[in-house]
Amino acid sequence: MAMSQDEMPQTAQVQFNCTGSAVGKMRNELAVEMVRPFKESFHLASDEGAFHGGEASAPPPLALFVAGLTGCLMTQIRAFAKRLDVRIDDLKVETRVVWDWQKAGRVYETAPHSFEIDVLLDSPDPLEKATELIRAAQKGCFLEQTLGQANTIRHRLKHDGRYVEI
Amino acid sequence: MAMSQDEMPQTAQVQFNCTGSAVGKMRNELAVEMVRPFKESFHLASDEGAFHGGEASAPPPLALFVAGLTGCLMTQIRAFAKRLDVRIDDLKVETRVVWDWQKAGRVYETAPHSFEIDVLLDSPDPLEKATELIRAAQKGCFLEQTLGQANTIRHRLKHDGRYVEI
Repeated sequence: MAMSQDEMPQTAQVQFNCTGSAVGKMRNELAVEMVRPFKESFHLASDEGAFHGGEASAPPPLALFVAGLTGCLMTQIRAFAKRLDVRIDDLKVETRVVWDWQKAGRVYETAPHSFEIDVLLDSPDPLEKATELIRAAQKGCFLEQTLGQANTIRHRLKHDGRYVEI
Repeated sequence: MAMSQDEMPQTAQVQFNCTGSAVGKMRNELAVEMVRPFKESFHLASDEGAFHGGEASAPPPLALFVAGLTGCLMTQIRAFAKRLDVRIDDLKVETRVVWDWQKAGRVYETAPHSFEIDVLLDSPDPLEKATELIRAAQKGCFLEQTLGQANTIRHRLKHDGRYVEI
């Protein structure tokens, strides 16, 4: 930990890497590293229930995602509350995400359907202040900003020792 | 667990809910529930390091997200390999996500910068079969499909006992 938030430059980049290793039936060991602005390491795992042939030894990837989205907004709300002078006596966030699932030949295809987030804020401050806080938190939340735009994911397949763009 | 994947209808919806509760300095208790097509519950948590004033008692939300994205694609690759007749001797996936961070008055704003995923597939099958598998997995991966389009997130703020659209 090399700096506090107030010491951050005007602009910066934040990078997270993950190396996933397939083990067991459907379990993935997920070694996550924050690379920038400083280094930290975390070990996570995912698994599936019997539906996907797994052993339910860890949460499924969608549980990690919905938890991450919820936690990201909550973190920004608390990080920004002091800066925007809003007192938080209690905070809960309720997130609901729905995806569509459709058979496609031997496999299936998926698509996002809806995202709903309710922020339950217990604060003596007026609604206008609370609203300003939530709006700022949305712009500061890496994951909300990621979901709000169409992102290109670059894929490479390493097969027989060489990388091929997919 | 009520059905196997082969018993799923032509179309279905998958829903995950999360209730986050702010505890400690920056820790969030994250109760995740799969609601459809069947019910399962998972307990996760996020925290922050000293940079955000946290106590590093759990991974940060971005670690949950990157782990979820990596695990989601890996799950689809293994789930579809049998259906597409590709043998997997070993599978690793390396994901790198970069975000931009920018000061904005008293707070800051964020934006996604790049997403890169390398699939390291150890298989005796030809490259064409492996490529077909990865492409199908991308379409079947809920999180890849979510990131590929601009999503609207509906927000409500509950303040003083009433919900307000944000």
